[in-house]
Amino acid sequence: MRLRNKPWADDFMRENDHIVVQEPFEWKGKWNNQFNKPEQPLHLEIGSGKGQFIAGMGKQHPEVNFIGIEIVKSVIVGALKKVKQAETDNVRLVNENAEDLREMFETNEVDHIYLNFSDPWPKNRHEKRRLTYHTFLDQYKEVLKPGGEITLKTDNKGFFEYSLVSFSQYGMILDDVSVDLHADEDPLNVPTEYEEKFSAKGQPIYRCKVRFTT
Amino acid sequence: MRLRNKPWADDFMRENDHIVVQEPFEWKGKWNNQFNKPEQPLHLEIGSGKGQFIAGMGKQHPEVNFIGIEIVKSVIVGALKKVKQAETDNVRLVNENAEDLREMFETNEVDHIYLNFSDPWPKNRHEKRRLTYHTFLDQYKEVLKPGGEITLKTDNKGFFEYSLVSFSQYGMILDDVSVDLHADEDPLNVPTEYEEKFSAKGQPIYRCKVRFTT
Repeated sequence: MRLRNKPWADDFMRENDHIVVQEPFEWKGKWNNQFNKPEQPLHLEIGSGKGQFIAGMGKQHPEVNFIGIEIVKSVIVGALKKVKQAETDNVRLVNENAEDLREMFETNEVDHIYLNFSDPWPKNRHEKRRLTYHTFLDQYKEVLKPGGEITLKTDNKGFFEYSLVSFSQYGMILDDVSVDLHADEDPLNVPTEYEEKFSAKGQPIYRCKVRFTT
Repeated sequence: MRLRNKPWADDFMRENDHIVVQEPFEWKGKWNNQFNKPEQPLHLEIGSGKGQFIAGMGKQHPEVNFIGIEIVKSVIVGALKKVKQAETDNVRLVNENAEDLREMFETNEVDHIYLNFSDPWPKNRHEKRRLTYHTFLDQYKEVLKPGGEITLKTDNKGFFEYSLVSFSQYGMILDDVSVDLHADEDPLNVPTEYEEKFSAKGQPIYRCKVRFTT
């Protein structure tokens, strides 16, 4: 995604360091202390984009604590605005590359991971970059609690098919799948910005929920 | 499916008993002897309908022996015509209810099972009738060789989603999936009559290949 540079972004994030966590690697193993209700489960979105999902989920699920990771600075400031507008205190944002989650999260620290409209990296030679490649699953398995779930949404047919097979070959169990999410009219679904755009064009949105075997 | 009665069907099938096997339960454990090349793998289609798939597969894969099971007499005669037209000697048809495959096939006798456009039984109370309900998977596992595969095709979203989850919860591994088969332009795909009809309307066709763990 190409976006204009936003020179005010750093200042805006620093001014809102109660939402955008400034030294995220130092919170490894104690993320629950970021939140007013540390006993709540911790859900993680990798690639939060403009934040409609994580802000909406934060509002819809006050019983959960959320962390959204987004590497693109000019995008995460949009997420920050959405979280502020949502006036919810259970969402934190992290402006980092989630190359290895194990540097940011302790073993068993996370209850649920969301992968929303991740880059599909369609070329075969880029398979290793896909967020459902087995090396990423290794990370998720470690930071998730035993039996921890991943929910994936995408509009990309090839990435969805690849991910279903990759999960299964890894030994993960499929708990739920939709090959046309908006036809299901799930009242609890919180759409991302991408999702609204693609669904409005009549394209199906795919979703699955999988878990690691314990 | 409602069809006119075809009183000539019994005669037609008996006249072609080299294709429509007359006492199928007596062939349990020795189906390979039905074929000119008994050493070839045995593939089974459950619910062959009008036979376009099994006749086409028979022609496309002379290196495989095929059996198509279809309970509806007025439908299987159509399949018989198609197999005769295909002029291939590696296809047999069975006009029976496949309620328990273990009565018709020995343990490890089958190499591959096809489920094409099976009745989706959409109501929850009919779940047990779906051909991917776990009691059917028990049967498939027993008659299939270790590592034996199932290929499922359907146009029915709910049945496809149900089946993917049912396979996974059973511990089966997903080897391939397509959520829009005709967009993939697989040159080896042999469409069924249903498939052509639904795909022509622009509806996606779903396919998956799964296998039992050994």
